[in-house]
Amino acid sequence: MSELKKYLNRVAKLTDATLDELLPPESASPSSIHSLMRYATFAGGKRVRPCLVVATNEACGGTFGNREAAYAGAAIEMLHTFSLIHDDLPCMDDDDFRRGKPTAHRAFNEALAVLGGDALCIFAFEILSTLGRIDIIREISTALGTSGMIGGQVVDIESEGKKVGKRTVTYIHKNKTAALIRASVLTGALLAGADASTQKKLASYGNNIGLLFQVIDDILDEESTTEVLGKDAGSDREKGKATFPSVYGIKESKKYADTLLEKALKDIAFLGDKAAILSDLAEFIRVRVS
Amino acid sequence: MSELKKYLNRVAKLTDATLDELLPPESASPSSIHSLMRYATFAGGKRVRPCLVVATNEACGGTFGNREAAYAGAAIEMLHTFSLIHDDLPCMDDDDFRRGKPTAHRAFNEALAVLGGDALCIFAFEILSTLGRIDIIREISTALGTSGMIGGQVVDIESEGKKVGKRTVTYIHKNKTAALIRASVLTGALLAGADASTQKKLASYGNNIGLLFQVIDDILDEESTTEVLGKDAGSDREKGKATFPSVYGIKESKKYADTLLEKALKDIAFLGDKAAILSDLAEFIRVRVS
Repeated sequence: MSELKKYLNRVAKLTDATLDELLPPESASPSSIHSLMRYATFAGGKRVRPCLVVATNEACGGTFGNREAAYAGAAIEMLHTFSLIHDDLPCMDDDDFRRGKPTAHRAFNEALAVLGGDALCIFAFEILSTLGRIDIIREISTALGTSGMIGGQVVDIESEGKKVGKRTVTYIHKNKTAALIRASVLTGALLAGADASTQKKLASYGNNIGLLFQVIDDILDEESTTEVLGKDAGSDREKGKATFPSVYGIKESKKYADTLLEKALKDIAFLGDKAAILSDLAEFIRVRVS
Repeated sequence: MSELKKYLNRVAKLTDATLDELLPPESASPSSIHSLMRYATFAGGKRVRPCLVVATNEACGGTFGNREAAYAGAAIEMLHTFSLIHDDLPCMDDDDFRRGKPTAHRAFNEALAVLGGDALCIFAFEILSTLGRIDIIREISTALGTSGMIGGQVVDIESEGKKVGKRTVTYIHKNKTAALIRASVLTGALLAGADASTQKKLASYGNNIGLLFQVIDDILDEESTTEVLGKDAGSDREKGKATFPSVYGIKESKKYADTLLEKALKDIAFLGDKAAILSDLAEFIRVRVS
């Protein structure tokens, strides 16, 4: 596992440097929104999505640290941050803290949080356009839309306080969380020129670890503490959120997590030795709960 | 002028048909957000931006009704609608009516209005990606970002209730309104394969009519009635908005409008007869106030 930690650190450094290079400085006018964009982007995220872009890119023959993968990873991290900022708004999940820090609308104000999220979304597409790859813009925009991330967010909010079944909770997590993770993996593969069969297997891997990520997140919300999480523990239950534990129970959720991990590892078995980091990443996502 | 009215009607029909073809049906899940997206998009806008795309495209040699220009016009109309939905939110301009109908967050709810705006923005990039033109995606995303539309919105909100000068009011309108209008004109030109010199002149035309559009809007807010506007008249003054009349006075604002119109007409003089619709459009924007 320590190889993975080193890898994650290398990607985090690469991503932070790239984001710092790309995002307008706080001094650039209008400075308030640039401050918010940087505040939210540098709030201590683990850079899991950029890591998936870079690691998949390397597994498919790309060189670590190449500009295209670094830019795409940074753009996807901006898109992820945009979704978190809007998700935290009072009219949405109404969260005051994220990763132990006040959320963007608390640290700044609501209007600026709406616009800062918008700006990160738009800027991500501007960055992606510099890569000259229409196929990647199409992949990512589809993953974000109403048949992807936004669709998942809508159903997530509309399911609050309602009794929902397995189909709904799977729909939410497949779209809200897994769609962008799957797109991150595919972006890395597309940048390395992976063929259709490789893309298909990696898309399945992305989908499985995306779901795994969310199952574990749901379990952590139930079992961990506010201190460890950096956000309110137990808040899903309090808000009546549709989560895997709320539908399957904790024990079955953990079993489901194991199945997803197994599937993910099978998806990338064809890569042989080159799958090492991607396998470790999947296991890393799983081991956060015992 | 009646030739222009006919042209505007033809483009509005083309744009409405294209939007109807592209936007997911209300019946598609999650239906709430698709309903909101259609509600806001079909709220009676005049389709000025799609008209600029199509008319510029035709002036540069494109054929009326070609798929690329129709798609680009529809995508830009989605982006415009996204900006209006977020602009109307309680934390922003807090408007209850637009074009005589309840605003999106009033007709639906705030969370859905945030997400519906996001979805229109993302979907527009998905549509633009189908055109395969990276240059257009770059042009439009730059026009929307913090050195364009969003930047203008930030300064607009932050200037409320403050005494601002000519520089600030020009900054706001150049970015908040003119940037996307300029990008619409350029998109039509790029799709028709216009050369760099033509692009430059048309960009200047777009900037001038964009500013003109906003000066007239500001004057209308002072001089017209709520009934005619379909939104609260006098609301700019009430909110302490930075407008041209608030800085220059009404008389000087009208003089400034005349100067902008003159400049815009000069910018497109090189097109000769082909400039007819673009000239009429500029004059149409001006004559809304006497």
